[in-house]
Amino acid sequence: MRMAELSAESGVPVATVKFYLREGLLPAGERTSPNQARYSAAHVQRLRLIKALTEVGGLPLASVGVVLGAIDGAETPHRTMGVVQQELAGTPPKVSEEAAEWASGLLADLMRRHGWKEHPPAHRTIANLVAALATAKELGQEKLTDRLAEYADLAMRVAELDVEVVAGLTSLDKIIETGLVATVLGDRIFAGLRHLAQEQVSREVLRG
Amino acid sequence: MRMAELSAESGVPVATVKFYLREGLLPAGERTSPNQARYSAAHVQRLRLIKALTEVGGLPLASVGVVLGAIDGAETPHRTMGVVQQELAGTPPKVSEEAAEWASGLLADLMRRHGWKEHPPAHRTIANLVAALATAKELGQEKLTDRLAEYADLAMRVAELDVEVVAGLTSLDKIIETGLVATVLGDRIFAGLRHLAQEQVSREVLRG
Repeated sequence: MRMAELSAESGVPVATVKFYLREGLLPAGERTSPNQARYSAAHVQRLRLIKALTEVGGLPLASVGVVLGAIDGAETPHRTMGVVQQELAGTPPKVSEEAAEWASGLLADLMRRHGWKEHPPAHRTIANLVAALATAKELGQEKLTDRLAEYADLAMRVAELDVEVVAGLTSLDKIIETGLVATVLGDRIFAGLRHLAQEQVSREVLRG
Repeated sequence: MRMAELSAESGVPVATVKFYLREGLLPAGERTSPNQARYSAAHVQRLRLIKALTEVGGLPLASVGVVLGAIDGAETPHRTMGVVQQELAGTPPKVSEEAAEWASGLLADLMRRHGWKEHPPAHRTIANLVAALATAKELGQEKLTDRLAEYADLAMRVAELDVEVVAGLTSLDKIIETGLVATVLGDRIFAGLRHLAQEQVSREVLRG
């Protein structure tokens, strides 16, 4: 297909497609004349993926580049997912040293009890989680952190479902892409379901 | 306490505190002289809450204002949580009409089966969820949406835990603030736990 069709099919404006080509986020098409190139279904899929990462996942383009590089690279699915999660995690907010120390201890203890592999403190998922727990502590919201083990049990159930969704696939590309989508869209979808469920449950309990 | 102490205690720079005072996000202190005012523990708590909403929740200041207005207003906790969730939801990404229609049907069916109250399509949580599901469909990720009912069951379990955390409280202010924190930090904490759990589960299943 030509550029106009690629744009229509993917829902990405022509100017944006050209920008992605220049930035190397989208591989060049097959040149058919000095001014024209032909694009394939793989280009449409790649554009939809970039759209999902930026619009639904809220990833900056630099992170999208890193993630796509990992997908295109020779990494194993497990390592690629690691890269994806680091990029998704963003930069943790600042918290007081005291609260951070308390939160690190709480999380380390939880991970040990659950038999989860230890991570260096610089691991972005860990750093973000510690910052969020420390913030809850600073706000005097110990009710929330007291129940952390129960949240972790449910998170484990969700993760098992996530990995089941991915593990039914056979192509390596599809495994990585699905894992990526499951992470980016999966967080959004789960948060949305949780909010609807919260409304439902709180309607009965909190109705004032 | 004075401004300098308020800043030190909350971890918010003096210039930012003054900005919040001007914007009406933080109530004025008790004036003790033409150039000085006294602030209380309530001011520290309010500053920490603003910090959590902006830094951890990623809320723009305009949304923080709306959320704090709802907290300070005479709304019931249930209604206040509704406002909070609308602000947190942000603007849904654009998707094709066909995929959106499919996703709306899928979600409506799910909510009916779960006995969840219907919402207008303009409800932001619904609009975002529809956009995320439609994006998954556009990417050919039906594996993810096929399991939606199982994700919804787990989301219900998480929401029950969320509401339990809030329902143990007695003061109305605390209920609303905890509900707010449980939503903003709760999503971050749960996503972090899920990612760690995914790494753990995928280490065994996907190791290539």
